Amino acid sequence: MAILVVGSVALDSIRSPYGYVERALGGSATFFALAASYFADVRMIGVVGEDFTPQDEEALRQRGIDTQGIERAPGKTFHWSGEYGENPNEVTTRETDLNVFEKFQPKIPASYLDSEYLFLGNIDPVLQIEVHRQMKTAKLVALDTILYWIERAPKQLAEAIKNVGMMIINESEARQFAGDHNLLRASQKILAMGPKALVIKHGEYGATIFFREKQFGFGKHPFRAPALPLDEVRDPTGAGDAFAGGFMGYIASQEELNREVLKRALFYGSVMGSFAVERFGTERLQSLTREEIDGRFQIFRELTHLE
Amino acid sequence: MAILVVGSVALDSIRSPYGYVERALGGSATFFALAASYFADVRMIGVVGEDFTPQDEEALRQRGIDTQGIERAPGKTFHWSGEYGENPNEVTTRETDLNVFEKFQPKIPASYLDSEYLFLGNIDPVLQIEVHRQMKTAKLVALDTILYWIERAPKQLAEAIKNVGMMIINESEARQFAGDHNLLRASQKILAMGPKALVIKHGEYGATIFFREKQFGFGKHPFRAPALPLDEVRDPTGAGDAFAGGFMGYIASQEELNREVLKRALFYGSVMGSFAVERFGTERLQSLTREEIDGRFQIFRELTHLE
Repeated sequence: MAILVVGSVALDSIRSPYGYVERALGGSATFFALAASYFADVRMIGVVGEDFTPQDEEALRQRGIDTQGIERAPGKTFHWSGEYGENPNEVTTRETDLNVFEKFQPKIPASYLDSEYLFLGNIDPVLQIEVHRQMKTAKLVALDTILYWIERAPKQLAEAIKNVGMMIINESEARQFAGDHNLLRASQKILAMGPKALVIKHGEYGATIFFREKQFGFGKHPFRAPALPLDEVRDPTGAGDAFAGGFMGYIASQEELNREVLKRALFYGSVMGSFAVERFGTERLQSLTREEIDGRFQIFRELTHLE
Repeated sequence: MAILVVGSVALDSIRSPYGYVERALGGSATFFALAASYFADVRMIGVVGEDFTPQDEEALRQRGIDTQGIERAPGKTFHWSGEYGENPNEVTTRETDLNVFEKFQPKIPASYLDSEYLFLGNIDPVLQIEVHRQMKTAKLVALDTILYWIERAPKQLAEAIKNVGMMIINESEARQFAGDHNLLRASQKILAMGPKALVIKHGEYGATIFFREKQFGFGKHPFRAPALPLDEVRDPTGAGDAFAGGFMGYIASQEELNREVLKRALFYGSVMGSFAVERFGTERLQSLTREEIDGRFQIFRELTHLE
């Protein structure tokens, strides 16, 4: 089964207590695609500039990712620069140069139109709606967003989530979007706006999936996957997108979408997030094996399961 | 099996978005004892003043708690007053009147000396050491502390934890005590100081237990219990002590201390913490049934377990 992801492709300059990388391959669509590529066929839509190197593209192709939807535009690639301190949850953004991403207009190659799964990365909700409208036969559509759109385009975002199967966001975003500090109440408010399920990411504490009543055989009971206590978080950039990639990738690899598949998908999401932060940029996500992934899945199970 | 707890008994005045209570029964030993009382015999050591009412003591006795170790001193009971906002993790302390607690000198009644389990609440580590020294036959000793002692008496605290089986603290306390933001590394540093196991409480995200190598058949793998997403956290006061009470209480109710018992104990700790915050003060912990507790244990299992 194929997943189509639309989102940012970036070059990131990142400093942390563990080192520094300059203009390393990044962006939400990139982290998502690499993580998902271990489970399913992945197709990417994004835009890059003239400074995007053949090596950058090769890192995606080596993972079997279809890159024909990555448009090359005159100018420079979206560049983000930031610095993490001892607390990996706190980042200081040094520069955000949108460059060619500022005028991004997603174009869907004809060969992508039969994708069964669609992940709408955190772009302008108006663009998310446009892409969604062209993907009528998708079995499951999931949507991510960021505080920027929650604050600047709440109405368009409400429209964008009306008909999606899932929304996948951070807990601070969920609180802000719902206007409620309590996550259970916030999730109920967001689910009432349309999505059948809501995944709230808790960073170093894992993620919780909340459901509209009687969706996916769950009733209203949420399910929670942990994150792994790691002794070195070298670079947290892209962890949430890697989570989403593992989550959607596992779903796309299964015949049926039911309670058990969603629970396992949440675990695989956390697994991919835990790999992402162990090295700078996308390094770790480029060279995994399915054995390593399933080995870590087992560690997650042992971390949480009674006999 | 009997648990001896030594710690604070207080009267708390608490405001939250859900209401207000004045001079309600509280204190770390109280929350611990009430939570543990559903699993094992509990004996308390503490000090109260002349304003401690027969009704306050009756709330403990009704749960079968042995209160002969609660000393009555001239003056007033330890009084704490605080206010929670929309975010239950943030509290503004209005008053802390130590009163009779300031000169607290724990005295162990002879009938308590055969207690198999000992919980050293967050009092002066010098007093913790003294109590511990008198309880030579205890099978398991667990110790809690607070930032106050970590900052003011780190050497005494290091001495106090040298020979305990477990230390049970919040994650901010673990970070501060170990001088390391990373919780896995912090846990290794603290375990190297003596305890066989370390429980780190994450508040609304549950708790993780870390082990010294090859303790309790665990190897070095940690285990994590979640907290329950609740739609109303009315009063978070005492949640951590209720957690410790459920954790130690369950351990004391079992014949053997092994891997599986410790995992279940962590779940029971989270269960008792989740009950504690649903009502003001100790209200909810006074009127539970074992059926309600085991029902919620089952919900915790469903929240986290794959098929």
